[in-house]
Amino acid sequence: MTMGGPAPFSRIVVLGTGLIGGSFALAVRRHFPEVEIVGWDRAEVLERARACGAITHGSLQLVEVLRGAELVYLALPVGTILEMLPAVARGVEHTALVTDAGSTKAAILRLSRVVFRNEAHTPYFVGGHPLTGKETAGIAHAEAELFRGAKYALIGSGENVDDRVARLLRLLEALGAVPVWMDAETHDWAVAIISHLPQMAAVALARVVADETDETGLPLKLAGRGLRETLRLAGSPYEIWRDIALTNTDNLARALDRLAQAVDHLRTRLATHELRDEFEAANEVYKILRQFE
Amino acid sequence: MTMGGPAPFSRIVVLGTGLIGGSFALAVRRHFPEVEIVGWDRAEVLERARACGAITHGSLQLVEVLRGAELVYLALPVGTILEMLPAVARGVEHTALVTDAGSTKAAILRLSRVVFRNEAHTPYFVGGHPLTGKETAGIAHAEAELFRGAKYALIGSGENVDDRVARLLRLLEALGAVPVWMDAETHDWAVAIISHLPQMAAVALARVVADETDETGLPLKLAGRGLRETLRLAGSPYEIWRDIALTNTDNLARALDRLAQAVDHLRTRLATHELRDEFEAANEVYKILRQFE
Repeated sequence: MTMGGPAPFSRIVVLGTGLIGGSFALAVRRHFPEVEIVGWDRAEVLERARACGAITHGSLQLVEVLRGAELVYLALPVGTILEMLPAVARGVEHTALVTDAGSTKAAILRLSRVVFRNEAHTPYFVGGHPLTGKETAGIAHAEAELFRGAKYALIGSGENVDDRVARLLRLLEALGAVPVWMDAETHDWAVAIISHLPQMAAVALARVVADETDETGLPLKLAGRGLRETLRLAGSPYEIWRDIALTNTDNLARALDRLAQAVDHLRTRLATHELRDEFEAANEVYKILRQFE
Repeated sequence: MTMGGPAPFSRIVVLGTGLIGGSFALAVRRHFPEVEIVGWDRAEVLERARACGAITHGSLQLVEVLRGAELVYLALPVGTILEMLPAVARGVEHTALVTDAGSTKAAILRLSRVVFRNEAHTPYFVGGHPLTGKETAGIAHAEAELFRGAKYALIGSGENVDDRVARLLRLLEALGAVPVWMDAETHDWAVAIISHLPQMAAVALARVVADETDETGLPLKLAGRGLRETLRLAGSPYEIWRDIALTNTDNLARALDRLAQAVDHLRTRLATHELRDEFEAANEVYKILRQFE
């Protein structure tokens, strides 16, 4: 645990205190115990968030929680963020910074340009996306170190940032996150490849396993730890992915098209020496991923 | 540790003392310490196998190790098993049982019918495949409990088995393995779906990630723990998979064809409610896999 100097914000509002919002709140409180963190969510979620020390207090009234907030952190499904953003823009102080942790960025950025002016003496919006998470959602799984070592996409050039954004950067770095600036379109294409495509590949693979399993229980009954680990993502609930598929449809469709091509490429090369090239390229990717540990 | 009564075999030869052969030997010695286990492999592998207590002694001479063996356990790549099977059949006692742990079974069974008569007073062959393993090969990673809880495919009907096969069953069950009888063609189709297809899917996914990563390092540099875990199989070496792809080409090609169809099915349904059905089918498969824990 490292202290990050004086807290960059003294009153933070977290809209949605589930896995990401709850972990953000826990992390802020660990590093800056003096910060007041107000949660907004369903009553039972707020109760759990308060009990585990993630928030100092909670409220069900959006208008009330936004009053006096210096930083508003939206940690909700993309569809809910899109629904709430206009009301948030209307309700916050003109000195506030609003940011989000939504999984796709282009749709949110398009709307944010309509509802925020991003000028001095007006509320400021910056889009974000922590590349972290777990298979298990909810405040019960939140942890203060979830952001440590994780890439944190921020939307923009990263040049000449507003003072409020500079303070957010300082906060994120104190939490151990690694900010990476990019535009919304680049972000959405990148996550289509590294996050959304692996999810859909697991769903497709599970579909083949299900379709091929007959009344004898084979082939599924022969499976063990290996397939379970490989299909871990197949356990993800649709609710989390619906908004992602709806707001990143074109990128994801293109990524799935590339995957189908790669699968077909392998299919026609199984009994040839070219299969070695495919394995070596895959080994190289895995080697790079291991360096991130 | 449970003792399995008197040892079903008093002298076992393990051909190939890597991860599977070494783990088999360690497990046998833990449960039946009185059994003599002779290893056959490269000199440096035998030295490590002896040092960790997997084998009682080792030899580089096949003819010599086969003499007096009651059980011969081939734990080698499928291609090497195919190369060695005729010499093993010629070299073993007429009372011996020969079995293998090869990843595909049809090619091995075809050859075994030529070189073994499977009658009284002749050496007997039964094909097998423990559905276990690790990403990391070699004797250094062998462990005595690798077979515990693992399905162990045995090729045949399982009815009226030869006494030698009955003793192998007793041995495998003492090691904690769960024998499952099936024919070679059913086995090879089943492993194409649950083992070989997930491997190829990881290689294909890694290929897309590699192809899409540009000079800025994106999207790969945005990845973290999640993608690393998903692409764990992309780290597997070609050498292990070459023989599998060569001896299960048709099944694997058919499985890859089904996967390409499933990927395409998802692609055209991203923005529809049908995506929910696909996720629910995947959730169901994962639920069944978790029951195996």
